[in-house]
Amino acid sequence: MLNLSMLESRIGYEFRDKKLLRRAVTHRSFAQEHNERLEFLGDSVLNCVIGYALFLRDRHFTEGELSRVRANLVCEKTLHDLALTLDLSSFLFMGEGELKTGGARRASILADAMEAIFGAVFFEAGFEEAQKVVLRVYEPILSSLTPETFSKDPKTRLQEMLQGSHLPRPAYAIVNTTGAAHQRSFTCECRIESAGVLTYGKASSRRAAEQEAAALAIEELSKGKLNAVRG
Amino acid sequence: MLNLSMLESRIGYEFRDKKLLRRAVTHRSFAQEHNERLEFLGDSVLNCVIGYALFLRDRHFTEGELSRVRANLVCEKTLHDLALTLDLSSFLFMGEGELKTGGARRASILADAMEAIFGAVFFEAGFEEAQKVVLRVYEPILSSLTPETFSKDPKTRLQEMLQGSHLPRPAYAIVNTTGAAHQRSFTCECRIESAGVLTYGKASSRRAAEQEAAALAIEELSKGKLNAVRG
Repeated sequence: MLNLSMLESRIGYEFRDKKLLRRAVTHRSFAQEHNERLEFLGDSVLNCVIGYALFLRDRHFTEGELSRVRANLVCEKTLHDLALTLDLSSFLFMGEGELKTGGARRASILADAMEAIFGAVFFEAGFEEAQKVVLRVYEPILSSLTPETFSKDPKTRLQEMLQGSHLPRPAYAIVNTTGAAHQRSFTCECRIESAGVLTYGKASSRRAAEQEAAALAIEELSKGKLNAVRG
Repeated sequence: MLNLSMLESRIGYEFRDKKLLRRAVTHRSFAQEHNERLEFLGDSVLNCVIGYALFLRDRHFTEGELSRVRANLVCEKTLHDLALTLDLSSFLFMGEGELKTGGARRASILADAMEAIFGAVFFEAGFEEAQKVVLRVYEPILSSLTPETFSKDPKTRLQEMLQGSHLPRPAYAIVNTTGAAHQRSFTCECRIESAGVLTYGKASSRRAAEQEAAALAIEELSKGKLNAVRG
């Protein structure tokens, strides 16, 4: 267990109330004074800070583009990645049972603690201070965003969405080809078994048919199916 | 069309940039300079402000209780109710086609404009000013919250969730009764056709079986099915 002051210096904020920070890194399996309420607070602060940063970035990004990129930046996978760069697990208080778990369960505990830290800063010092901490922690990610991030092709976006939810890749298959050689029409299916999604795209090239099917699958998932699967 | 300064006095904030307010109340059907990006921003500010207000209210509320009550407070129905108390539709810029639509479509346009106004205040004046405006607009609702709001019975909560999404009430039916008269066991189904949800509760009284089935239906809906239906 490392000293929490190291964590403070990594996030660039020194807590007046050290118990608050300790609480933010305490999982419910360890103590009654755990981080779930702070996580609730931090989640909304994070959404707001990242949403605003993206909003300011380019006035031409649409609401849909902003929502999509933000969803990627505040998802469990990204938060877990950031927690790893801070070596957050070295500061975490967890019960014996939880200590032994790895993989997805551990990733979610770390992601939650990351949010709880943002919530704790907000609680103690207000929005602007929390904003500074979030932007500092997210700096490597925000600075690497390119205009293309906002308009990635559907297949890439779909794959990222699924990865962010620990789901396997979609399976694409050409299920029908019609028309003479110079005016073929391809029908491609995109199947995501784990999310119960099956969509079809039709276009004059395989690639375009796949992209169309992927775009439709994103629409399906955005209607909440992904949460249904994750929940 | 009423003068926007009347709207400013109702929300308790005077914009330096009047064009920003005008944009917040402009639907995309009316002009290119519409309110969708501000709505994106306002949605996250609203979540944060209301989340924080609930967080401060009582330290014994769990994350689940906070999430549930917040979801109720920031849902389209509540935003629409608030928009009506401000007579927001008198200030709205909409295309001719949209002007004629009523009901659910109009409710969603008003709810979005409500969020866009919060976003506009945040953009011009920062978090604390936006917080003041949100808390002022929400004051009647926040002051009427009781501890019971946080722990309403499942049937009531389920009905509120469905109402907030313009879905019909669930249908309850006792599908099985077993045991002798003094130790009956009732199985109740809760069916929400429109959301594809069917759950069963079992208990020693009809009422308790219904509550159990309702609680399970809430769990199902919280996994994202409600969004799938609304989307």
